[in-house]
Amino acid sequence: MDFNELAKMFTTHYYQTFDTNRAGLASLYNETSMLTFEGEQFQGQPAIMQKLSNLAFQQVQHAVTTLDAQPVPNGAVVFVTGKLSVDGNPNPIQFSQVFQLHQGAPGQFVCVNDIFRLNYC
Amino acid sequence: MDFNELAKMFTTHYYQTFDTNRAGLASLYNETSMLTFEGEQFQGQPAIMQKLSNLAFQQVQHAVTTLDAQPVPNGAVVFVTGKLSVDGNPNPIQFSQVFQLHQGAPGQFVCVNDIFRLNYC
Repeated sequence: MDFNELAKMFTTHYYQTFDTNRAGLASLYNETSMLTFEGEQFQGQPAIMQKLSNLAFQQVQHAVTTLDAQPVPNGAVVFVTGKLSVDGNPNPIQFSQVFQLHQGAPGQFVCVNDIFRLNYC
Repeated sequence: MDFNELAKMFTTHYYQTFDTNRAGLASLYNETSMLTFEGEQFQGQPAIMQKLSNLAFQQVQHAVTTLDAQPVPNGAVVFVTGKLSVDGNPNPIQFSQVFQLHQGAPGQFVCVNDIFRLNYC
């Protein structure tokens, strides 16, 4: 799969799942995956899902502004900037996020690196 | 070298060099390095240095706001958010940038992936 196509498919799936069924993100991480969320570090699917499940909002909507990708051996590095709205707040917050994806089983990709930051203006 | 220490050393060196002697960045890229700059893609040190040397400003100052890193086999992925001021303009612009660093010769690191975006508010 072309790395740009992979990046697009992954991010569409990731943010749709995040916004509608956060527990469904679990299948994207494995035991060596790393998440750095606003400077806090987590490793492995259970720790990552515990963090993502306990964020201090009920509802969130992500909108992607820019999507860049580069190929890496066995996958891609993906860089997103965008805006997110939480709990119906009309003022979206800017964010940026890096994913590194590696192919696991054929056609399946694991997120091995995930770094998230809010960008305050 | 610890990946956090590597990330700190690299970004300090990178932005100091960018702001004072842009041509000096050449040693950080090799023939397979990739740069995506505001959506434009470049591969290999010559193409990357041509882009970086011809940006539409004379002077620039980068200030790092957040610096995150994760280890990868043989290196680190590094994620920076910050502000930059060009040609003495008093209104800095937010940016975010991803680097993937791989060890080449002992103690030397090459930037294999570099993705840069301005973040307009």
